[in-house]
Amino acid sequence: MDCRNTLLEAEGDIEKALQILKERSLFQAQKKAKRSTTQGVIEAYIHTGGNIGAMVEVNCETDFVARTDEFKELAHHLAMQVAAICPQFVSREEIPEGVDIEPEKVCLLLQPYIKDPDKTVQDIINETIAKVGENIKVSRFNRFEVGN
Amino acid sequence: MDCRNTLLEAEGDIEKALQILKERSLFQAQKKAKRSTTQGVIEAYIHTGGNIGAMVEVNCETDFVARTDEFKELAHHLAMQVAAICPQFVSREEIPEGVDIEPEKVCLLLQPYIKDPDKTVQDIINETIAKVGENIKVSRFNRFEVGN
Repeated sequence: MDCRNTLLEAEGDIEKALQILKERSLFQAQKKAKRSTTQGVIEAYIHTGGNIGAMVEVNCETDFVARTDEFKELAHHLAMQVAAICPQFVSREEIPEGVDIEPEKVCLLLQPYIKDPDKTVQDIINETIAKVGENIKVSRFNRFEVGN
Repeated sequence: MDCRNTLLEAEGDIEKALQILKERSLFQAQKKAKRSTTQGVIEAYIHTGGNIGAMVEVNCETDFVARTDEFKELAHHLAMQVAAICPQFVSREEIPEGVDIEPEKVCLLLQPYIKDPDKTVQDIINETIAKVGENIKVSRFNRFEVGN
């Protein structure tokens, strides 16, 4: 019983720590949100067999960060997310007025992240912002499926 | 002088042979032009450094041909062409009425092919049609450039 309690406490601690990390990333992201992002990369992902393809433009502040592994990895995962989950818009702001849809389903940034559905895509972008120390924006994406 | 004449004759023969090949490909392509193309691949090309990316959908008649090296190579070269030469439309038919532009500059199919500017992109598609024995269409493409 003691052992079980210790385990439960440890789990609680981990959850708290994750929450603190998430809040820190969000705080860092918000601080940088107005900085202009003119650099970045174009990344593409072709699903096995070539039936689905996705391309994204992810921007940051400097060419230096655009060349880092953390940033390129983020771009790669975003292209995979687009290929797999088929978002319609980048963010809530892009949904035309009067259109009645669930933003969490159709907006890339609000979707659960495919590799960790407890986080949103915006959460993992915030984590990368905290890591690389620059503002990061997804400016556009495109998804092709054969015959669609 | 004899030698020079022989050379000139040989060059003339090669030119004639190429012309015949081109006409044959065109004839084969025209014969197949109405066949429906519901299979194919999505292919992407990211220019070194990740500043430019292009994605194309190329269609053929069967999944079998879509998996051949010839077809995949064509799709790859078309994606490179889009990244490098920045077409605006697939074909002449897509140019909106009343828009005054040079179709040979803005239409992918009419542009000189980057790897052999004596041919158009449509010529190399026709060559692949002749090789694989199926109708081939480019249905769409997209090109992203960082910050554009």
